[in-house]
Amino acid sequence: MANNKAWALAAHLSGLPTADNFRLVESPAPVPGDGEVLVKNLWLSLDPYMLGRMTQQKSYAKGVEIGEVMTGETIGEVVESKHPGFAPGEKVAAPAGWQLYAAVRGELLTKLDPSARAPLSYYLGCLGMPGRTAYFGLNEVGKPKAGETLVVSAASGAVGSVVGQLGKVAGCRVVGIAGGKEKCDYVTGELGFDVCVDYKAGNLYRDLKEACPKGIDIYFDNVGGETLDIVLRLVNLFSRIIVCGRISGYHATEPYGVKNLGTLIPNRVRMQGILVFDWVDRYAEANKALAGYVAQGKLKTRESIVEGIERAPQGFIDLVKGRNFGKQLVKLV
Amino acid sequence: MANNKAWALAAHLSGLPTADNFRLVESPAPVPGDGEVLVKNLWLSLDPYMLGRMTQQKSYAKGVEIGEVMTGETIGEVVESKHPGFAPGEKVAAPAGWQLYAAVRGELLTKLDPSARAPLSYYLGCLGMPGRTAYFGLNEVGKPKAGETLVVSAASGAVGSVVGQLGKVAGCRVVGIAGGKEKCDYVTGELGFDVCVDYKAGNLYRDLKEACPKGIDIYFDNVGGETLDIVLRLVNLFSRIIVCGRISGYHATEPYGVKNLGTLIPNRVRMQGILVFDWVDRYAEANKALAGYVAQGKLKTRESIVEGIERAPQGFIDLVKGRNFGKQLVKLV
Repeated sequence: MANNKAWALAAHLSGLPTADNFRLVESPAPVPGDGEVLVKNLWLSLDPYMLGRMTQQKSYAKGVEIGEVMTGETIGEVVESKHPGFAPGEKVAAPAGWQLYAAVRGELLTKLDPSARAPLSYYLGCLGMPGRTAYFGLNEVGKPKAGETLVVSAASGAVGSVVGQLGKVAGCRVVGIAGGKEKCDYVTGELGFDVCVDYKAGNLYRDLKEACPKGIDIYFDNVGGETLDIVLRLVNLFSRIIVCGRISGYHATEPYGVKNLGTLIPNRVRMQGILVFDWVDRYAEANKALAGYVAQGKLKTRESIVEGIERAPQGFIDLVKGRNFGKQLVKLV
Repeated sequence: MANNKAWALAAHLSGLPTADNFRLVESPAPVPGDGEVLVKNLWLSLDPYMLGRMTQQKSYAKGVEIGEVMTGETIGEVVESKHPGFAPGEKVAAPAGWQLYAAVRGELLTKLDPSARAPLSYYLGCLGMPGRTAYFGLNEVGKPKAGETLVVSAASGAVGSVVGQLGKVAGCRVVGIAGGKEKCDYVTGELGFDVCVDYKAGNLYRDLKEACPKGIDIYFDNVGGETLDIVLRLVNLFSRIIVCGRISGYHATEPYGVKNLGTLIPNRVRMQGILVFDWVDRYAEANKALAGYVAQGKLKTRESIVEGIERAPQGFIDLVKGRNFGKQLVKLV
């Protein structure tokens, strides 16, 4: 019987996560019950939303309890199946957590198409939840029109990078916001955004205004806080703000107070919070469209990979601090 | 020739308005040019948005310049017409400003139905712009469903009072927010809201939470600022916030920072700024519906009237300070 290694929550968050919030637990791999599948995880996704799970705040999803394995999406291989829909060797996307092995109910697994040519890890990024979040948020709430100016924060990240590239497909002028010259160069050079503004350069308002001479029609917000407040000074009539993430706020002790909501009335701004689960009935549409763009070379991606389950907490801490570059993953095998 | 009296802007706003911001100017009544109508004003409407016109901030509408007559809607009578569509004696709604007489282009006038039985002043309130703002904001953006909880701030005011009564027609539980026991008693007793919370009582969060045991599905926001921040702590999944006014912010030196936007994502809140002009093509629909509710006794109104053009600035200052009670008007004749 294989050995499992799993990261459990050792302490709820107060401030930024540190190594002390996690505890590595070793045990035999679980035995699947009826209707369950034993999955061997190959890739683990690390995402900002996990910060919310580590707190005791009320949210849309149950938090992780002390001693419980950290939740997370994985790509894995079926080792043993007690569910009629799955057979050993098949590749699946699973909510299997920060660990090497998990027994998961078959209904919660998504089988990956064996004929697909994209790397498996893409199904945690541009072809997975982040890609679908970008797809539905931009198209259903942002409703981009050719010639409009789209601004995307966390532009080199898993969601932002897809948003901007879909914006280019829609004919928008696409302006990214990212931290540091290296990320900005990647956003314009590799991802094809028109401009990328470096928020670490010290004058975001001035630089963003210069990058958006016709103002901002759509803002895809992955960070919240002060960046949102600055964008609000530049929005156009009938602009749309897709509120998708607020990494700037997850770990702030005192929440940032947004001062420029006054613009909502004269500009008739629509601001809407999104969660990708609301479009679960249409995932197949997004999956097909995104895979098509990858195949056509219109949707590129970059991964930030740490190797080995032991390094998962460090990869997560790097992500939270903005040290990662592209979709943050843990390679388990 | 009749004498005109008009209030001109004497100084742009810094802080709250005082008598020193206005100057009374006397002159002969104007002579209408081709296509113009000489209107004798009977009623002048005083509205919070006028604060914005008195500043030098960029907005959707041009501000009033020093020495220019204060802008405002009136109900008046045609005295002389050089426009084929109007004849002396007809009653009109006009953007005729803070004065006794104005020469206005015919295209800018709305003729009042002579067979209507409502008092003329209602066409500045529940049957005028405030009524239409409530109608379109609530129905088009709020989309109320029977059984939902609707919260309305400035509940005894010109817009808020109509919003709440339309909410009752739609089958909502309607909770008002107003300042002081007298206004709250009026909101529940006369207007028929289910509950009214007194924001001056000192614990708005606790009192509002108690008044909304099932949370808040729709918030019609006339005030912005701290009240909005408190409402954000109580909103439900898929709730809607109609951002209509922000009287709390118009005259604040330092804008209030809204801290609870974090709820937008988990609750998928939609927040949208509105201006009634965007539905100008559908005014007739609103006028008809609102007049019907007045006739059926489902839409009641209260007016706060000062008499004489000389008292217009005082009426406006009272309005801004929340001392008025109901739709603020100046009776000119």
